[in-house]
Order: sequence, then C-alpha cells, then structure tokens
Amino acid sequence: MDGRRAVAVWRDGAAVRVPADQPVVTAFDAGLARGDGVFESVLVVGGATPRLADHLARLQCSTGLLDLPPVDDATWRELVAAAVDGWPAEVEGVCRLFLTRGDGTSPTALALLAEVAPDVLRQRADGVAVVALTYGLAADVRASAPWLLGGAKTLSYAVNMAAQRHAHAVGADDVVFTSAEGRLLEGPTSTVVWAADGVLHTPPLDSGILAGTTQARLFAAAEADDWPTAVTAGTVADLHAADAVWLLSGIRGAAPVTSLDGVARGDAGLTARVQELLAR
Amino acid sequence: MDGRRAVAVWRDGAAVRVPADQPVVTAFDAGLARGDGVFESVLVVGGATPRLADHLARLQCSTGLLDLPPVDDATWRELVAAAVDGWPAEVEGVCRLFLTRGDGTSPTALALLAEVAPDVLRQRADGVAVVALTYGLAADVRASAPWLLGGAKTLSYAVNMAAQRHAHAVGADDVVFTSAEGRLLEGPTSTVVWAADGVLHTPPLDSGILAGTTQARLFAAAEADDWPTAVTAGTVADLHAADAVWLLSGIRGAAPVTSLDGVARGDAGLTARVQELLAR
Repeated sequence: MDGRRAVAVWRDGAAVRVPADQPVVTAFDAGLARGDGVFESVLVVGGATPRLADHLARLQCSTGLLDLPPVDDATWRELVAAAVDGWPAEVEGVCRLFLTRGDGTSPTALALLAEVAPDVLRQRADGVAVVALTYGLAADVRASAPWLLGGAKTLSYAVNMAAQRHAHAVGADDVVFTSAEGRLLEGPTSTVVWAADGVLHTPPLDSGILAGTTQARLFAAAEADDWPTAVTAGTVADLHAADAVWLLSGIRGAAPVTSLDGVARGDAGLTARVQELLAR
Repeated sequence: MDGRRAVAVWRDGAAVRVPADQPVVTAFDAGLARGDGVFESVLVVGGATPRLADHLARLQCSTGLLDLPPVDDATWRELVAAAVDGWPAEVEGVCRLFLTRGDGTSPTALALLAEVAPDVLRQRADGVAVVALTYGLAADVRASAPWLLGGAKTLSYAVNMAAQRHAHAVGADDVVFTSAEGRLLEGPTSTVVWAADGVLHTPPLDSGILAGTTQARLFAAAEADDWPTAVTAGTVADLHAADAVWLLSGIRGAAPVTSLDGVARGDAGLTARVQELLAR
C-alpha cells in the first residue's frame, strides 16, 4: 500500500501509536476470522476530524447492535488523536475506527489513518457512474430480524466489496443496492439522496440501511435553507426521473451520479448547492 | 483465549511458524477491515488432517468466487504442516486457513490451529437445540446475483455469529437459516441433513448455501451402503416430520438436532449409523 499511514491501538488503558506496517491483530481475532466487529470512516481535513462526534454516535449504535463490549467515546477520541498526531494539515485523510470481538480475552480497538485515495478525490469532483444491483433482502425483513444486523456498520463487507468489483467489471464506479421488491436501499459505502420536485429524498432507515451521517448533515442544512427533505421509499425509476442523484459518504462527500445503469444523467446544477450546504 | 494454539503465516515464499499470540495482520489488511477473504476449518485428529483435500477444493472455489489471487494447494499444505507440526496426537484440533485480499501489496495466507472447543465436543456427543431463523434472501436470488457471494465461505460471518448469539439468547445452541419463502438453507457453520421415508435429504446448492464437505462424504458413504440420498427443497415442517435431523460440519461431525424451535425431537436411532458412515 502506498502513501502516508498511521495506526494507534488501545493497550493497557492507553492509545499507543505503532508503525503502520506492524501487524496489530492475531490470527485468532474475531474481527479477522469472522468479520465480527464494527467500524467507522472519519474524514481528516486540516489535520482535524470535525465530524468525529457523528461517527462516534453511530459507532456506539453499531456496537450495541452487535452486542460488543462498549468502548467509551473518550477512548475513541484518544485513539483518533494518537493516529492523527503529526498528520500534515494539507493532506486529506480517512481515519478508520475498528472495534472487534477480539481473541477471547478482550475486544480489539484501534484507529488507522491513510491518505484519501486519488479515485475518491476524482469521484468527489467528477461524479460516479452507478449500476443498480439487488441486495436480495426484502425492504422490511431486517426490521424484525435483528440477527441480520440492519443498521450496523460491520466489518463483514465482503458482499459490499464484491458489488463494487462487479460495478468495475461492467465499467461503472459504484452501486446502488435495491431490495428484493426493487426499493432503493443504499450504496456499498454510501447513502443515496435524490432531488425531485424541489425536495431532497433518501430511503427509510427501517429498510435496514445505515443512518448516513453526511445525509443527516445535508438534510439539516437543507431544511434550514428552505429546501424541503423527505424520507421516501423510492425505486430506480425514481432516480432516473429525478433532477439529480448523489451518493453521500463522510469521505467522498456528495458525489453526483453521472450515469445510472448506463444511462447518462445530469444534476440540474444542484451539486454546487449540496456541496455548499455540506461545507457549512 | 485458553488452550493450545499454533499459527503459521506465508512469508517470502515459505510457511513460517510464529507465536500464537503474535499479531499477524496489519490494520490495513482487507481481511480485517472488510471481511474480504475466505476460509476453511479443517479437523486435526491423530495429529493429521485426513479431510484436507476436500477443504482445499472448496477453498479454491471460494477464492475464485471472490476474485482473490489464487494460492496453490502446495502452499496451503505447507502452511497446514507448519501449524500442525508438534501438535499432540491425542488433542483434537481445528485448523483454520485464511486467505485475505491483504493490505494492497499481496494477499495474506495463514493457518491457525486451536483445540476443538469443549462446547463443540459436547454438541457432537449430545446434540443441539436449534431455532429456525430467516436469512432474508429468496432461495433463488444468489444463483443470478454473484456479488451476493452464494457458495463462498467468506470471512464476513458477522450475521452468522449474530444468529448464533440470538439462538443462545433464546436458550438454543444453533440455527437453521431459512429463505424468504421459508425454504431450508443451512446453519451458520453447518449443513442441514434430515432422514425421512428411508432417504437422507439436504437442501440444493443453487439456493446459495455452501457445499458441505461432511455432507458430501456422508451421502457418498450412505449411497454405497444402500441408504438413498436426495437433494430436496425442504421446509421447517419437513424437519419436524423427519425421522432425524443433523447439523453437519467438519469439526463437529454429525450433531443430532434434539429440539427444533422448542419442540423436542428424536433421531430414531439413526445417529449411530450416520456417525459410523462418516468414520469410514
């Protein structure tokens, strides 16, 4: 792996900075062996993490959904501070927080930091070509089946990664997952937002998708700016008919969807407003 | 973690034994960060791995389904030999093989070895209380959606682990997953087999379940012993009506299901025959 990196692990009650190429988990760690853990990806900009609180709130939610031993926010903040220490202000970074069930004695908590990948910066600027792929689940099943871990950001992302590889194989950049009945869900690492009839829309959380931290911030800023928002059980047809579609995430921000299932689409000039709202 | 353990990692073209409590993957390894990898669990008995070939065949299949760089069987055999070296013949072990997408430079291949847990030995002898839980997917969706990784044994097992925790929370030991329409799929770490009308049954692979190595061995031995076998799209009702039900896996063997959704059930004396066939 190229580029600047940093890692901090929690050991004996303190955040300890370790060399980035030094192994940090054993072969018996459930995070490795079973994807049994949770994570967050936090943007580092100007050498700081202005959105950390939103991500810690979601991390605590994921921790509870997986019945993991809770790690308090102060610990996470120490880990983040140790990882970010000395990071150059001019380099955008992604700080990932991992909590795993560990190797049977105690959970594993660590923070890692890497440069934001050039592809991500390009997609933030130029947008993304997207394909819609089924996630297989009905939109209502996760609300009544907690073992399916709806709403939790887990380390078990093999399907998310396979979907993105599938998108690349067909010439696209990213994916919008749909439910068994064709409802919009989310991207593998993003929230879907669309503008139609003067309203910003996003799918309902009771479909089991993640609560998007960037989407929440955008919707609060939009409401304050007299741009109405709605939670809407949309379909791919709604995206085709929309004025603009974005994939939102903490690192990439609002990436406009420039094509959907091979059909080019515009953004009606709305991306600048969305990005301005997110910059507030 | 208690008990005897061993680890071997692939480094610079050779299997290297490392202390079991020594970290072996970095924070940037996709196996940790994304559950982006595959694995197998191989029984070690008498200090040997008599079923290794079956597991390597499935590992290669999983490797292909995830588009991971292939690792040849000779490498895996070296890793297993390095992990098993010196293991006492009288201690049953589980040897796990992990292949992850690594940290951007090369994939990670390793083998670990631990004692078979007392719970597993108890379940092998005394059977398991099982609850049926939905897996949410329709039985036919994975056959036409390869990004859902049907048939691949991935490191993304958070849902499997959550389902087992749910079973424990309701007083059961394990789970039978069912499809959205109520068809039998598999256990989180096992294959479902039932006996009815003089025939051994198991669900079809085109539902996206793993090809069970122990189930395949049992069915071959049963056919040779004039016990007919069938691939059957069954339901939980079929399990309730069956003469016997087992969860099959390489480590636990054939664990008879002693209750299903709280209803006690017998095995019509058939478990002894199943275990004798598996011992051939």
